[in-house]
Order: sequence, then C-alpha cells, then structure tokens
Amino acid sequence: MSTNSSGSIRIALDAMGGDDAPRIVVNGAAIAQVRYPQAEFIFVGDETKIQPLVDKHKSLKGRAKIVHTTERVLPDDKPGVVLRSGRQTSMRLAINQVHEGAAEAIVSAGNTGALMAMAKFVLKTLPGIDRPAIVTFFPTLKGETVMLDLGANTECAPENLVDFAVMGALFANTVLGIENPRIGLLNVGSEETKGHEEIRIAAQELRALELPGNFIGYVEGDDITNGSVDVVVTDGFTGNVALKTAEGTAKMYTEFLKRTFKSSWLARVGYIFANHAFKKLRKRLDPRTYNGAMLIGLRGVCVKSHGGTDAIGFANAIGVAYDLVKYKFNDKMSQRVQLMHEKLSALPPEIKTAAEPVVAA
Amino acid sequence: MSTNSSGSIRIALDAMGGDDAPRIVVNGAAIAQVRYPQAEFIFVGDETKIQPLVDKHKSLKGRAKIVHTTERVLPDDKPGVVLRSGRQTSMRLAINQVHEGAAEAIVSAGNTGALMAMAKFVLKTLPGIDRPAIVTFFPTLKGETVMLDLGANTECAPENLVDFAVMGALFANTVLGIENPRIGLLNVGSEETKGHEEIRIAAQELRALELPGNFIGYVEGDDITNGSVDVVVTDGFTGNVALKTAEGTAKMYTEFLKRTFKSSWLARVGYIFANHAFKKLRKRLDPRTYNGAMLIGLRGVCVKSHGGTDAIGFANAIGVAYDLVKYKFNDKMSQRVQLMHEKLSALPPEIKTAAEPVVAA
Repeated sequence: MSTNSSGSIRIALDAMGGDDAPRIVVNGAAIAQVRYPQAEFIFVGDETKIQPLVDKHKSLKGRAKIVHTTERVLPDDKPGVVLRSGRQTSMRLAINQVHEGAAEAIVSAGNTGALMAMAKFVLKTLPGIDRPAIVTFFPTLKGETVMLDLGANTECAPENLVDFAVMGALFANTVLGIENPRIGLLNVGSEETKGHEEIRIAAQELRALELPGNFIGYVEGDDITNGSVDVVVTDGFTGNVALKTAEGTAKMYTEFLKRTFKSSWLARVGYIFANHAFKKLRKRLDPRTYNGAMLIGLRGVCVKSHGGTDAIGFANAIGVAYDLVKYKFNDKMSQRVQLMHEKLSALPPEIKTAAEPVVAA
Repeated sequence: MSTNSSGSIRIALDAMGGDDAPRIVVNGAAIAQVRYPQAEFIFVGDETKIQPLVDKHKSLKGRAKIVHTTERVLPDDKPGVVLRSGRQTSMRLAINQVHEGAAEAIVSAGNTGALMAMAKFVLKTLPGIDRPAIVTFFPTLKGETVMLDLGANTECAPENLVDFAVMGALFANTVLGIENPRIGLLNVGSEETKGHEEIRIAAQELRALELPGNFIGYVEGDDITNGSVDVVVTDGFTGNVALKTAEGTAKMYTEFLKRTFKSSWLARVGYIFANHAFKKLRKRLDPRTYNGAMLIGLRGVCVKSHGGTDAIGFANAIGVAYDLVKYKFNDKMSQRVQLMHEKLSALPPEIKTAAEPVVAA
C-alpha cells in the first residue's frame, strides 16, 4: 500500500468537504501537482462543479479523475448518522477509493467526526494497533512539535498512550525529519506520582521499553509550545482541549496585536516601518503551513485539512499525505508497533501496575 | 470569619514564599496597605529579615505583626513530606493564623502543592463542599474569564463539577463584579453525547438545577480566551493543562513579537513609533494583574500568588484575598452550595445517570 506500479502516488480527495469546496480542493490539488509531479488525484464529488475547475489547470491534465456523486457530508452532520446513511457521500466514496486500492491516501477538509468514524469503519486499524489517533504538528519557540491524540479517543488505556508515543515519534521523523525525537507524556507536574493512573503506568512502560526516540518523561502544558520535546503524547480529550486552547490564545494575541497597531496614528506609522518584519512572523506562524492532521493507525493514509483553509493550505495537507505514502509511513509504523508490543509483553508485571501515589492528607 | 470586631481585615502572609521573598512580600503588603487602609498584616517568617524591610514602609507602621520562624517550604519540597515535617514552616504557621482566628486570609507565593496540602489539612473544607478547587481569572478578547479547577483534583465526580460551577460563578461575581455569570463546561465538542461520562452527567444536573448564573452548556478550549463565557468549569487535570498551554502560547507569542521588533533596523524604528500603543497592550496583558489564584472551598480564604511575581503582583494577590474577605465570599458560598445540594438531591434519578453516547462504528 505505498506507491503503485507506475511510480505515481494516487490521492483521493473529498472534493465537497470544506467551507469553500470544491474550489479550494481543486485549486489546492493543482498547486500540489506542481510540487509533487508524481501525484495523481481522484476527485470525489459533483462532476458538474468539479470538471470546469479541473479544466482550468494545465497541471491537472491527465493526472485527475472524477468519481461522481451529488451527496455530501455537512459540517453539522452527526458521525453516527453519517455512518449509517452517508454511503454515497463524497467523503465516504473517497475513503472507499483507498480501501479498494484505487488510491493510497485520502484528504478531506470536511466534518472531522464523520471522517474519523467512516475512515475507521471502512479502512480498519493496522495490525497491532488498537486505536487510531489524530496527530498534527505546530510551531514552537524552537521549531515544531507533534502532538497526539487530538480527539479520536476520549479515554485511553496505558497501552494506547504507549502506541501513540511510537506512532508520534515516527510521524515526527517522517514529516519533520527529526532523527531521534524527544517524547514527552503530558501531565500536571513532573513528579512520578502525579496525574491519572493510566499516565503513570504508561510512563513506567515507556521508560522500560527501548523505543526509537527518546522518552524524557512528563511534560506540562507550557512544554507544548516551548520546544522542550518533539512529540507530546496525551489522550484525545486532553489533547483536543490543549490544541484548541493554544489556537484560541494565538487568535487572541493576533487580535490584540491588530488592535494595538490600529489604536493610534503613531502606532499605524510604526506598523508601516515594521511591516516587512511582521510579514516574516506571519509566514512563520501561518496556519496554512501547519494544515494537515493525520488519522494515524489505519490501513491507508487519511489526512484531515482545516475546513476553513484556502487552496495553499489544502495543498499543504495533500503534501502531508504525499510524504506519508512516499516514505511508507504505515508499513514502518505497523512494524514498529508490533515490535514494541513484543517488548511490552516481555516486561515484568510490576511495570504494568501503577505505583501508589503519595496522597497528601 | 469575615472582618473582625475592629473593622480591620487581617491577612497572614507567608513571608518566606516566592522567588524573591521576603522582599516582594513586605513591599507588596506596603502597596496593598495604601490601597486597602483597613488591611492588617501578619508576616510569618524570619524576623531578622522581615523587620528591617517592614521598618522601611510608613504605611505598615502599626499595621504589621511578625510571627517568627526560621523554617520554610522550598519550591521542590514534596507536599506529603511538608505535611508531615513542615509544621514549623512559615507557610504552615501562616495557615495556622487563619485556623486560630488571628487572621481572615492567608496569601503565599510558595510551593503550590504544599500550600494546597497544608491548607486542606489545617483549614478543612466548608460545610457541604466535598473538594476544594483552585480558581483564577485571566484576560480574554472581551474581558476576563474565571476558570476552575486548575489542579487541586485530578479526577472529579459530576457533583464536584457542579460544586465548581456554583463556586466559580460566585467568584466571578465577587472578584470581577459580573452580575449573572455565563457558565460553560469544558468539553471536546458541543454535542450532548461528547466527552467523559462525568461531564455529561454534570451537564444534565446543571441544566436541571436553577442556579445563580447562567449555564450555557459545553464550551471548547478556544472558548477560554474568546470571552464566550465568564466561568469555565473543568477537572483539575484538564484545567491545569489548559492554563499552562495558554500561558505557554502567550509566552511564545510575546517572544516572537520581541524577536520581530529586533529583527531589522526598520522594525526597530517601527517599535519606537508603536511603543506607546504597545505599553497599553502590555498593561492589558500584564500577568501581575491576574496574580492570585484562590484555593476555594476551605474554611478561610487562601490565595496563591505566582512564585516569580514582584511586589505589585503580590499586592494584587493580597487584593484578591482582601475582596473575598470583605464581601463575605465564603459565607455566601457555603449557603449557595448547601442550597444547591438540596436541589440536587431532589432531582429525578435519570438526570444523575449518563445518557448513552452515540458510538460511531
């Protein structure tokens, strides 16, 4: 399930997912096609809308196929409902392309919950992986950090967190090119005895296993952005809250900054001088650069783009999918996770039990 | 346990807690004394160090007492150890002042875990309150938001979350002057069926109870900073991660901003023009303004200052303690919580059971 015999990498696109679909999807694919000449696209959605857009791009000529359907998943559709009655939606048919071997990856900017539910149902998990997770990367003071799970699993057993550590390290390796990623387990303090039992057991197991990557122990919320680790491992509830809190805080700062530069004539003049420098900062923090969360752990590459992104952002999400296929991410991951499970089962039982927390009063 | 007969409000200060103690503690008290002429202080710590500092401030004359001890809690001391062997520390003796009725409040910039453990042990919880929580407030796009619990309780039952909602609403009322605070329960989506079981049950209970404040349902991480609610309710694990993630993101932005203004001569010139406007922004976001997290739910007011704060920040933490005593926060809270528990016990049992989540796949 990596590249096909012709050397091309075939990516199925949910052409109807996202705020400005199918425009951003087709235009994004056209940008990605120039960057990755080996890419081929299967657009799934309303042919009457997609074909005219495809025809505008020379780069897509002979590299694009359309699978027609008029149904689509709406942003507020409930995952459970979509799963039962959304078999003809563009999202579902795009996922099917991967399952049927017509494509190696699927990218969608549609409803996250629906994508997760349908991808899990259709593609199933990789051998040895119990739970898929959502993973992405974002800017820090020192570079980039990978975090998972961002919302696929509300509750996690210690073994799930250990899986996530292995998966996240390989993701940092493949997408960010970090040789020996430093892995941290998100907690509320660095002491051995802090946090939920699952976390304490996972920490013991991660210390005992000799994994690729470097497990450095517990990290706290502020470590997500200070660059002290390359991979932050947490359950899907905490990860989702942390990601959205960081996004919200960033948005608040950006808004305060705008207001400050508009607050007086002097400040406006200041902005004219500093404008060039701020352009660089905006580029550094451009959310489009960090577009593309992967639903990791499935038989097939499944990437979720932000719903509100533009064509450049969508092209970046395609880029994530492309790299994961090209570097045989899933094959490697399956091997690594299975090896890890063998090591895990050989560990003495006391490591799989939580140490008693020191209870204060 | 509000003001004493003389009308003054007596506050015990852990004079040895904080990075730059006792200097910031005494200087902070001197600033607070001018703001709140009714305040009286009991400094607990090394008299030989405190007395010369106190003597420097006219405002403290006749309003300061010293309780001498040479022992102190260190930043890395474990709560459990401090609880057993720290009975003569400045922190413990300052808490004792409240327990013994010599003071109405205690403020410390020392070790949070130790303060929590000792304050719980010495002061005990208010009638009807099962678990104390850590609560504070911080800036949002629209004003300020209160959040709790920030780390006192790693795991919470639905009833604890309901208690926190009542406590947080009254805190927003007392400290921020918000008449009818909007309360949100932190979750990973706005759907009924999302999140942990505890949260789903707490939401049902909060909807069924007619509480002071306005329960608006679930909120997500980005609602913490966008000002859509006045009170964010969550367990201590999630709250601690969210708070530290927000702090870390804010720090990263501030650092990027500094680097941007230093990155070129033009940008430096721009900064000169915009400097005045940025001063206002810095003031708006000044962490010293938001200094003072309360350990809420105890018999006595216990406020934690940031360890790294300066005298102005410490004075603000004293201000939080002062207001809480002055407006009889604990008396009101105890009444409200007991009333709420009566209503809660009258609710039909189906509200105290989680609705079945819609499981996808």
